[in-house]
Amino acid sequence: MYAGKIPPAMLKKIVFSSLGPASSLVKVGPGVGEDAAVLQIDDSYHVVASDPVTGAKKNIGHIAVHVNANDVAVTGADPQFFMPTILLKSSVGEEGLRDIVGQIGKACKEVGATVVGGHTEFVSSIDMTIIAGTMFGYTSRYIPTSGACPGDAIVLTKGAALEGTSILASEREDELAGVLTTHELSIAKGFSSLISVVPEARLIRSYVTSMHDPTEGGIAGALNEMAEASGYGFDVDPAAIPVPDVTKKLCRHFECDPLKLISSGALIATVPPAHVNAVHDVLAGAHIEHAFIGSIVESGRTLDMPEHDALWDILD
Amino acid sequence: MYAGKIPPAMLKKIVFSSLGPASSLVKVGPGVGEDAAVLQIDDSYHVVASDPVTGAKKNIGHIAVHVNANDVAVTGADPQFFMPTILLKSSVGEEGLRDIVGQIGKACKEVGATVVGGHTEFVSSIDMTIIAGTMFGYTSRYIPTSGACPGDAIVLTKGAALEGTSILASEREDELAGVLTTHELSIAKGFSSLISVVPEARLIRSYVTSMHDPTEGGIAGALNEMAEASGYGFDVDPAAIPVPDVTKKLCRHFECDPLKLISSGALIATVPPAHVNAVHDVLAGAHIEHAFIGSIVESGRTLDMPEHDALWDILD
Repeated sequence: MYAGKIPPAMLKKIVFSSLGPASSLVKVGPGVGEDAAVLQIDDSYHVVASDPVTGAKKNIGHIAVHVNANDVAVTGADPQFFMPTILLKSSVGEEGLRDIVGQIGKACKEVGATVVGGHTEFVSSIDMTIIAGTMFGYTSRYIPTSGACPGDAIVLTKGAALEGTSILASEREDELAGVLTTHELSIAKGFSSLISVVPEARLIRSYVTSMHDPTEGGIAGALNEMAEASGYGFDVDPAAIPVPDVTKKLCRHFECDPLKLISSGALIATVPPAHVNAVHDVLAGAHIEHAFIGSIVESGRTLDMPEHDALWDILD
Repeated sequence: MYAGKIPPAMLKKIVFSSLGPASSLVKVGPGVGEDAAVLQIDDSYHVVASDPVTGAKKNIGHIAVHVNANDVAVTGADPQFFMPTILLKSSVGEEGLRDIVGQIGKACKEVGATVVGGHTEFVSSIDMTIIAGTMFGYTSRYIPTSGACPGDAIVLTKGAALEGTSILASEREDELAGVLTTHELSIAKGFSSLISVVPEARLIRSYVTSMHDPTEGGIAGALNEMAEASGYGFDVDPAAIPVPDVTKKLCRHFECDPLKLISSGALIATVPPAHVNAVHDVLAGAHIEHAFIGSIVESGRTLDMPEHDALWDILD
């Protein structure tokens, strides 16, 4: 068995069949491409997302907050409250724990979320510290991944594979010494500071029909998940997808496709034609790089769904 | 470093200092002995608990649901929604996953909760499948662990170390073959079916000042956590705490104290004198065994806080 998220077919066949009693309060439940659950509580919607960090050795507190904050933000809510379950490998001492919770506190401040509880324990059966996080927030309007409509333009912020680039630059630093210059290596590692999509999601959420945070499976995986969730297809020109130069070099070395490499930090959103100018204006006004890469169509997909993330082929 | 929950001193010194921005919506936040966070959303309270299962090889789906449901129930809310993060060791195949999610669906049905999302992935750096769960629910009145008052009677349901007994009977079955009879071994393993305290919490929640679910550190740990949370002490006679015969035998063999062994399945609650009869009546009416084991006092504790759970000394 490989590492990483289980494939959609297995998820649908095995996991989605054991969900306990149905509840009419659930507006968005488990589904391929839905990053967060949405529950209707009185007049507001409660948005909850759970995502673990298992593939990184460094910055895991930082990553745990941001990937969960992203999942809440793409559903149209502000990330307000965070619950981390921190599973420490036994060699992590007080200093290691202090570093991790320091990162969590700092990242929570960045996105405006409060740590409201959680769990911290040492686990003897793991070789790597793992954080399983849950983020939640409340909103009067939510945006499901399934909301994409034919004719919508697809906008992408920042660029492909920022997260994968920073993970590989950290984990394979020695190997990359001859491939990237010291300066490029430091740029690549620094991409970890760009993984939040909370700012851009807040800016464009009133204009879009759906937003999605490409994590495992990269941009190609995220586009396919959006198509799966909405029941439509997409027409995207791969050449129109911005890939940072340093990412191109790194991917050439590892012989991997940057469009299939884990990509937190980019936000993909679908925009009705009437709002395309407004979305461009607010993103440009906030100096957030972005590109319109294609559109939602009735059927067909111009990029394949990766079987699993390119990261696992390299790290395993 | 040992395995298990980190000690309260480390929690207070390191973890509680990095919680991001404060929020006035947080009614119960991180604290020793507080099993769940409570947030005020409009006119209702939102109760959230996160707890992982890391010490058991069998029934982990079942345990994951119930320990999290317990944490929500002791705060006075019904467990309504569940989000599991399932981290599979690579040798778990489709059948193993099907078994785990089947347990989750069944346990959710037992407590009345719906699975609303989550995450499932294969992780190469773990030797044991881990589930990090988050359960939440809503209530118009919440009961913090800190609510215990001097003069309150302390009631305990079922008995000590049910969970530890069932874990050890499963994990050390061969070793116990000469210590317990086949019938006793099957009783011990069967205690895993008793770990839910949701039924008794629902029955007594309108009469009590606080409820607590003794997990790691057992009954002794839970009483100390209640004292810590409320700022008062407790006067409990250890001999008054019910311990099943099979648990006594098993603990004699492993030379461990049943009052310091992981104890999900027992509910500890503090009851104002005026409500003692009512609590006895509703529990007896539902055929739930229980004992009044002592009372909350201004200061002093008649049982020490265990440094860590007795389970880890045996399993490690």
